[in-house]
Amino acid sequence: MTAARSPAAGRLARFSFNQATATGWPLEELVAACVAAGVPGVGLWREPVQEYGLDRAARLVRDAGLTVTSLCRGGFFTTNGWREANLRAIEEAATLATGELVLVSGGLPAGSRDLDGARERVADALAELAPHAAAAGVRLAVEPLHPMFCSDRCVISTLGQALDLAERFDPATVGVVVDTYHLWWDDTVYRQIARAGDRIAAFQVADWVTPLPAGVLLGRALPGRGCVDLRRLRDAVDAAGYRGPIEVEVFDAELWSRPGAAVLADTVTAYLTHVA
Amino acid sequence: MTAARSPAAGRLARFSFNQATATGWPLEELVAACVAAGVPGVGLWREPVQEYGLDRAARLVRDAGLTVTSLCRGGFFTTNGWREANLRAIEEAATLATGELVLVSGGLPAGSRDLDGARERVADALAELAPHAAAAGVRLAVEPLHPMFCSDRCVISTLGQALDLAERFDPATVGVVVDTYHLWWDDTVYRQIARAGDRIAAFQVADWVTPLPAGVLLGRALPGRGCVDLRRLRDAVDAAGYRGPIEVEVFDAELWSRPGAAVLADTVTAYLTHVA
Repeated sequence: MTAARSPAAGRLARFSFNQATATGWPLEELVAACVAAGVPGVGLWREPVQEYGLDRAARLVRDAGLTVTSLCRGGFFTTNGWREANLRAIEEAATLATGELVLVSGGLPAGSRDLDGARERVADALAELAPHAAAAGVRLAVEPLHPMFCSDRCVISTLGQALDLAERFDPATVGVVVDTYHLWWDDTVYRQIARAGDRIAAFQVADWVTPLPAGVLLGRALPGRGCVDLRRLRDAVDAAGYRGPIEVEVFDAELWSRPGAAVLADTVTAYLTHVA
Repeated sequence: MTAARSPAAGRLARFSFNQATATGWPLEELVAACVAAGVPGVGLWREPVQEYGLDRAARLVRDAGLTVTSLCRGGFFTTNGWREANLRAIEEAATLATGELVLVSGGLPAGSRDLDGARERVADALAELAPHAAAAGVRLAVEPLHPMFCSDRCVISTLGQALDLAERFDPATVGVVVDTYHLWWDDTVYRQIARAGDRIAAFQVADWVTPLPAGVLLGRALPGRGCVDLRRLRDAVDAAGYRGPIEVEVFDAELWSRPGAAVLADTVTAYLTHVA
């Protein structure tokens, strides 16, 4: 079955499968399965792409006719070597022909309690990277992460805060990621999505379930299995003018233990049922 | 040693030891140890108080000369029987002669994705309880909990949101709790503390450490062990006009495994070093 012939192709037109949803699935298998299922886009991660080989990965997805909807991730501006790492990430995004490089800012430096300072370092880093990103045709997509990650992964915790930062720059160069898992709880999120408008660089979807596992990283769920009003959030990004891909990105240890093909099939079904 | 003779008494004048920091410590021992250490206030919880006997507990703390700085907790407005449970909690607070009843709103009802609806139920419940609280001389102290508890414990996730609710009522009847553990990550928290002013019904202190344990409830730390700028937050509530007690309330499985007296001693030291 090809994308053109698939009955789901119309409804999958905006769907993108984020590689992290089936972590460990070999890239060639993932790409072939996406093509077979009529999935038009994939969200890729730097580490598995580097492992496969950057140019080879770029060729693989291009030859398959897939769009790389985003590259995860740059950022971590509070660690040493952030500048070089992010310049490389921009190049990688350009090579993969994706316009959106997802940035996770990083947490507090070890031993620090200076949250304002860490946040200001993010602004400084964006200012330094923006010209390079613009030259490469890549947008820096600032992703606010759930406040439970504030100390150790991402000091940018709300969409409002991400926009306060992003708005210092050209919307074509610095945008924001709207991820349902990270933002659903915020009583200001709908106002902020409207404010975001053409700064929405990516829309990522995962559901919230409890109890959270130790470390809280791998407790996400496929759309429909949790308590997030995904369709309302999706309607909100659409109403804000977003017409781009809808990436399903789920970190879940149980999901990762299953064969990639089964994960993709369940993800497509969950997307069609609860998001599309 | 008595409170009046203790060299720490001046610096402990605003300190309150929340019972949950040494969960399982028999109330009589806790009260005696607080008196011996020159601790002037305790924050109590309904379940251990009921176990000991409400009137008996009220007499115990009164005879010891301790102030009950708050009672935890009412709320859980999205569960059946919330009305009766909260009317009882108001009575218990009055019996214990505390002016502050901490309310944790409750999460989403099972299977629900209607976060706005759950939040509106909190407002309705406050409207219903406010006259009873006012008559009893008890303030309803709305506590925003960290967003990681939004789905299952508390749909009120930020101080701004708690104030939006509280401001519908007389500040003498409905206030807010500022808990450093729940609010430290919020880039608007200092603005909201200033806004809160005389609505600050309680100031609770715990520190943030990672990795979070499974279920994320018992991952807090004594002041100074984590990344929260506790003194800045304490200065902010003071600048907002708050002159009330400073309760150290830490949920930590490791702490709970130790003898109450040792926990109290460490808590006093942590308070004096990082908060007072």
